[in-house]
Amino acid sequence: MEFSSKLLQTAVDEMSQLPGVGKRTALRFVLHLLRQSETQTQQLTTALNKVRSEIKFCKKCHNISDAEICHICNSNKRDQTVICVVEDIRDVLAIENTSSFNGLYHVLGGKISPMDGVGPNNLHIESLINRVKQGNVEELIFALSATMEGDTTNFYIYKQLGDLPVKTSTIARGIAVGNELEYADEVTLSRSIQNRIPFESSLKL
Amino acid sequence: MEFSSKLLQTAVDEMSQLPGVGKRTALRFVLHLLRQSETQTQQLTTALNKVRSEIKFCKKCHNISDAEICHICNSNKRDQTVICVVEDIRDVLAIENTSSFNGLYHVLGGKISPMDGVGPNNLHIESLINRVKQGNVEELIFALSATMEGDTTNFYIYKQLGDLPVKTSTIARGIAVGNELEYADEVTLSRSIQNRIPFESSLKL
Repeated sequence: MEFSSKLLQTAVDEMSQLPGVGKRTALRFVLHLLRQSETQTQQLTTALNKVRSEIKFCKKCHNISDAEICHICNSNKRDQTVICVVEDIRDVLAIENTSSFNGLYHVLGGKISPMDGVGPNNLHIESLINRVKQGNVEELIFALSATMEGDTTNFYIYKQLGDLPVKTSTIARGIAVGNELEYADEVTLSRSIQNRIPFESSLKL
Repeated sequence: MEFSSKLLQTAVDEMSQLPGVGKRTALRFVLHLLRQSETQTQQLTTALNKVRSEIKFCKKCHNISDAEICHICNSNKRDQTVICVVEDIRDVLAIENTSSFNGLYHVLGGKISPMDGVGPNNLHIESLINRVKQGNVEELIFALSATMEGDTTNFYIYKQLGDLPVKTSTIARGIAVGNELEYADEVTLSRSIQNRIPFESSLKL
């Protein structure tokens, strides 16, 4: 796509580097901004510049944070003995939105994936082991993707823990709520049968 | 969605005001920028600020431009006697990409749509009539959407032209190239039969 304006061209090129945004969508974004007041564009760009230059990552759990230690790690209302291990900041947000977990998190920053060149050293695994070694942690909940890479990462961390006195668990795999049995794949279905739970306890959820 | 960081919250809120972008997509954009270098965010925001503050609209055809008069209106290689009337800047880009038109454009900035509160005075219709009155224009090609609003706008301009000595035409409606007959709607199909063209002339395209 060729533009009559160099300024427009540059803006569209920059915008189309965002994930999942092509030239057409980028053009739509830029034309939208052109239709709005100049203040709106300034607010957008200031917010982006600010978040990029001032954002911090929590030194304990590597979650995104405005301070050195994030408000979850800092909160005395949260159970400091349980750590939920997740891949990404988005997973923290997803779990927080369910309000079903009251412990702390540990953001790995990805999962072990030799195909993408991600090894254990590229992830925040060492700092997790250190958190466990410092004591006071009773349980690690692995909440990674239900993929080969996720399982590998779980297993790697499990091995690294050695005989540290910590319980490990992984989130349940089974039929997603609202899904019909006939469309479930075999692995999911057989796992959900193996890991069946007493009917009485399902009533309490 | 609630974020642990105010900076992130503001950035996501601003990003989600772009058309078709929800909170989740906005978060994906912002997290992507956080993973890139700070320079990349600066380049993006500078480009956006610059295009918003410095962009001009051509005084003749209202197309987007870096100068007072756009490079299409200024070009002496283009046929100054034919004006293609379009709704939007994107339509200019679309037609330019076909390389099938060598005249000038006139961007209306929308179409007459009482439902959306857009009347003839909100569009660049007066300046179009003035361009025709100044003479030297032999043909107006209406290239608006094939919708009720597009047709209304065509007809309004046609009436405003009165008995000015200018030919008017509208782009052909018919079966889109590559489409199968059985899926075409009746109006399109009947129009394509009424406006059939000599087979010999179709061979030349």
